[in-house]
Amino acid sequence: MNTSSSPARPASGVAEVEPFHAISIGKLAYELAEQGRSIIHMEYGQPSTGAPAAALALAHEKLDSEPGGYWENGALKARIARHYQERYGQDVEAEQIILTCGASPALVLALSSLFRPGARVALARPGYVAYRNTLKAMYLEAVEIECGPEARYQLSAAALEAMEPAPDGVIIASPANPTGTIIAAEELRAIAEVCTRRGIRMISDEIYHGLTYGPVAHSLLEYAPDALVINSFSKYYSMTGWRLGWLLVPRDLIEVARARMGNLFLAPPVLAQHAGLVAFDCDEELQGHVHNYTQNRQMLLDALPDLGLEKIAPPDGAFYIWADISAYTQDSLSFCRDMLRETGVATAPGIDFDPVHGKTFMRFSFAVSPPEIAEAIGRLKPWFAARRQG
Amino acid sequence: MNTSSSPARPASGVAEVEPFHAISIGKLAYELAEQGRSIIHMEYGQPSTGAPAAALALAHEKLDSEPGGYWENGALKARIARHYQERYGQDVEAEQIILTCGASPALVLALSSLFRPGARVALARPGYVAYRNTLKAMYLEAVEIECGPEARYQLSAAALEAMEPAPDGVIIASPANPTGTIIAAEELRAIAEVCTRRGIRMISDEIYHGLTYGPVAHSLLEYAPDALVINSFSKYYSMTGWRLGWLLVPRDLIEVARARMGNLFLAPPVLAQHAGLVAFDCDEELQGHVHNYTQNRQMLLDALPDLGLEKIAPPDGAFYIWADISAYTQDSLSFCRDMLRETGVATAPGIDFDPVHGKTFMRFSFAVSPPEIAEAIGRLKPWFAARRQG
Repeated sequence: MNTSSSPARPASGVAEVEPFHAISIGKLAYELAEQGRSIIHMEYGQPSTGAPAAALALAHEKLDSEPGGYWENGALKARIARHYQERYGQDVEAEQIILTCGASPALVLALSSLFRPGARVALARPGYVAYRNTLKAMYLEAVEIECGPEARYQLSAAALEAMEPAPDGVIIASPANPTGTIIAAEELRAIAEVCTRRGIRMISDEIYHGLTYGPVAHSLLEYAPDALVINSFSKYYSMTGWRLGWLLVPRDLIEVARARMGNLFLAPPVLAQHAGLVAFDCDEELQGHVHNYTQNRQMLLDALPDLGLEKIAPPDGAFYIWADISAYTQDSLSFCRDMLRETGVATAPGIDFDPVHGKTFMRFSFAVSPPEIAEAIGRLKPWFAARRQG
Repeated sequence: MNTSSSPARPASGVAEVEPFHAISIGKLAYELAEQGRSIIHMEYGQPSTGAPAAALALAHEKLDSEPGGYWENGALKARIARHYQERYGQDVEAEQIILTCGASPALVLALSSLFRPGARVALARPGYVAYRNTLKAMYLEAVEIECGPEARYQLSAAALEAMEPAPDGVIIASPANPTGTIIAAEELRAIAEVCTRRGIRMISDEIYHGLTYGPVAHSLLEYAPDALVINSFSKYYSMTGWRLGWLLVPRDLIEVARARMGNLFLAPPVLAQHAGLVAFDCDEELQGHVHNYTQNRQMLLDALPDLGLEKIAPPDGAFYIWADISAYTQDSLSFCRDMLRETGVATAPGIDFDPVHGKTFMRFSFAVSPPEIAEAIGRLKPWFAARRQG
């Protein structure tokens, strides 16, 4: 586009990107809290716990001893590479790990390393809002594949096989946001086979690995050595506000991805890079959080029928429940706002995750404490009951 | 681009982005330091000092009291808005400030909010490497305008007036990297006038404001209320490794930019957002750093003729000296590597900043302590002398 011959503002022609509506709910929640209201934050996918104690202790030490600058922690990259060997049995070199300021810029980095504007990238609907919006902002075509409850809201090899023409890429998420569902090992293997055969580049968002409730979350890397894998310290490691994530790239993309990292983002926060390394040794503490989420999940699954919310897919992982609220509303954003104002329970409206059916869905995040979940259920039961009668 | 009909990897068709060569020098410098060598780090534009004491103290406190999450510090946004009133006499609303993970993603955000792929964006050559590379990675056309020593390496209103067709946008940097030169008030006003008349959108990188040695650095905002302004806590505030910056957008772009921030980057680090607010009250300590840079600048300006480096523009601001080394080499990258290996003084090769003439230039960063500058000069004098004889 060249608008130089006219004084019209080019800004008016940029891609339209939806806001993340959960952010507006979060903002309202904080405003209500400042007014003295008791708020239970189930709108964001962020642990209410802080970083592991050992990570905090090291952060204190480094605050006083290091000025910090543009830096990448080589030891952390090596530790993450080792993690792929220990957890998934995959050989990964430290240089394949690009440290980023969280998983969001890792996705930008992955897409920028793989695709030019106009490329077509497949993804499941419902799915994480930023996939669709980031694709749009980068002038990539988001090809949404509707994945209903019968598919447990997940992409399948068959769906990717059926696409004509084949897309240039696909974003896989297991466990997924907003549903928490996991793609089983055999299906992941089949997806990898179809994508490899059809030349579809794979990006696997594995940010919820470590947070599972029975089923095992496999890495796509086990079946597709050239997949790009995104992960972060924001979920299992309980370090959301530290803004540290990573992108794993195949060897032939190391230079392409590193050049983009250096220019577009430069470097991730120093303190987080120190603390993140220690977090790998804090499994005992972190498993305590998983234990809490396991309780939270069960309490919610037990309570949802009483709320009249029976159409859900029990989550295999992550800390979300995706609930069909069509019996109550055709406008999930207003519904979540009303619920927040009237009960103090903040949740995310379905429109963030599904532009087609999202007006009749909502997402509960249960990454809070078990007493908070019990309190939330106590407030929601009468509120939903009143709506049923109303 | 749609490569779906072929199994060829789309990755091979992505924009070619040069690495930031100073990073390879920095890596070598750290390797030599690990071998026990004494290294003086003048390769990066990062203060060797840490964050202000009061910012560190608050960070300690918040580490222990707040779990942190996806958050934006409203008080910090308000404080930054007030800064534009106090420093530049400009009315800015807090909502016009988008907090980012440093100035680099702020540039991505600015470009994404203004332009579609194919738009043409003017910039000075020499200039900061990431401008050119980020434009390339976003499929924007970088229209470089050669700005020689006679123009003190800066863009002018006349140069922008002469461009046919007019570009869609321009990136202004004053004080500039790698030269430290400032655009005077009257010229900034003229640039704003030309751009407004010709419909050229303006992005002003003001990351070195606060670091000046005589001449005053004006904000482009004083002359162009619809300019986008980038700044960060990495330079004057001496908080490089904290990764916190901001983008100031005009009111009509707030929603466009906020939607991109939420989706592409999500949020900046929590601890940095706390500490950054306190840093605004640390001028006494921070002026001490400026005092050191003033000494460093003078020591270098006094010494450079002895090194045979007389063709320089004395910097008005920032902490750089851009030096013509054509008498010594036609390959600045090898020259900087050799200098580092033989003297322990790390610097940045000119090729990062000027793809045409950069092989015969280098950049000194003097954001270290005065004793380190004295030591560097002591090491470089015999090294340059030997090269002159050689």
